[in-house]
Amino acid sequence: MKKKLLVIKVGGKVVENPEILEPFLQAFAQLEGAKILVHGGGSTATRLAERLGIEAPLVGGRRITNADMLDIAVQVYGGLVNKRVVSKLQAYGLHTVGLTGADMNVIEAIKRPVKEIDYGFAGDIVRVNAEQLIYLLNGNIFPVMAPITHDKKGQLLNTNADTIAQSVAVSLSGTFEVSLVYCFEREGVLDGNEELIPSLNPASYDTYKAEGAIVGGMIPKLDNAFAAIAQGVSRVIICHHGALRELSQSKNPGTRISQ
Amino acid sequence: MKKKLLVIKVGGKVVENPEILEPFLQAFAQLEGAKILVHGGGSTATRLAERLGIEAPLVGGRRITNADMLDIAVQVYGGLVNKRVVSKLQAYGLHTVGLTGADMNVIEAIKRPVKEIDYGFAGDIVRVNAEQLIYLLNGNIFPVMAPITHDKKGQLLNTNADTIAQSVAVSLSGTFEVSLVYCFEREGVLDGNEELIPSLNPASYDTYKAEGAIVGGMIPKLDNAFAAIAQGVSRVIICHHGALRELSQSKNPGTRISQ
Repeated sequence: MKKKLLVIKVGGKVVENPEILEPFLQAFAQLEGAKILVHGGGSTATRLAERLGIEAPLVGGRRITNADMLDIAVQVYGGLVNKRVVSKLQAYGLHTVGLTGADMNVIEAIKRPVKEIDYGFAGDIVRVNAEQLIYLLNGNIFPVMAPITHDKKGQLLNTNADTIAQSVAVSLSGTFEVSLVYCFEREGVLDGNEELIPSLNPASYDTYKAEGAIVGGMIPKLDNAFAAIAQGVSRVIICHHGALRELSQSKNPGTRISQ
Repeated sequence: MKKKLLVIKVGGKVVENPEILEPFLQAFAQLEGAKILVHGGGSTATRLAERLGIEAPLVGGRRITNADMLDIAVQVYGGLVNKRVVSKLQAYGLHTVGLTGADMNVIEAIKRPVKEIDYGFAGDIVRVNAEQLIYLLNGNIFPVMAPITHDKKGQLLNTNADTIAQSVAVSLSGTFEVSLVYCFEREGVLDGNEELIPSLNPASYDTYKAEGAIVGGMIPKLDNAFAAIAQGVSRVIICHHGALRELSQSKNPGTRISQ
């Protein structure tokens, strides 16, 4: 039987608020067994950019990662946020290591190919080197992953944290029975009446989208979630950051994604 | 017989100049056997602080690490500089991982006790957890260490890179035959006529200091070097960043420190 592994992604709004981050990290440290934390960055990078008078160009409504914004992302996500989380978890007795994709070449990516839009230093994941993560986990060292990758040619790249969590979970599903959990500030996926949807499969997802009940930033998150469940991840959950303790009791808080 | 290990410290002036950093990292990647790189930060952090209008208080001629300056040090040293070096070394085929002292709890420190001066978030090293570095080296994973430590209570701290290199070298000297190499922009330790001193022992060091031929920032660096050689490190060298290739041929460029 495969060992269990939790891959938990926590959003930027949790990470940048110490009052909710600390209990979240305490709960994370107490979860039994193998686990990996993937964090977003929140608006700290944007605020730093504003203070420096740097503006990320907007193309077609999307922010472009130019060279200055990449430096800021590497500093804030790979440096400040990542090391704060690692040191807090060490204080809670969890033996953690902070990683970008460049560290141990854990995640190789390519600069997103230019079609209509040049997204700048945005990285599309090519490969997760799962054996490196397994080496750490075998040493009871728990990875804390920042949303930065590299191209193995010396270029760091900015990569969405939801996608990193999904790719990492999939890459480890051959070795572990993986649960992938997206934690954020809502109870889970909400319908048009702001009520929790306890479970979603591809058909019901399509219906909610067609009705306009699931919109905006939830769509790429759910696309990631469905990609994970389709590629061997055992359990995918989208839930509130305060629901972590329930997970340890093998319950399914929030919204469960199924095939 | 013990295996050999190189602990190489590279100064901030090398790290922040791509034209000298790249050949240095290429040479580092090609050095045979086990090795650890410890890097300083240079003036990137100070420049970022200036751009943000943050000023590190000066007390008794020394910069104090207040909370804002600590955040900047963590971002720049632990984030931008560290990850750039890691990704460049990956491009040169070296399997590296970037670490602060918080990662894997590699270096525990305490906030420097307040006597006459409160140095703020400056960390004095309490313990290097060498077994963690050995676990990485056994997996052919080469650490790249930033000058940031933590107190294992959730507080990150700013620690001198020379001291980190010395403490890491000493902690591993029970397991390895360690060479500690300080690389910087000069040929080695220079005398009053700006000529290279090929070797130094405690007596000749005292003489040079008494004559005023060795002064300033070289004194804490040499104090670290002598502390290392007194505590079990096999070889301590202070040399030019361009001399790394000579090291691989078991030569001793620059200034060799002896007991």
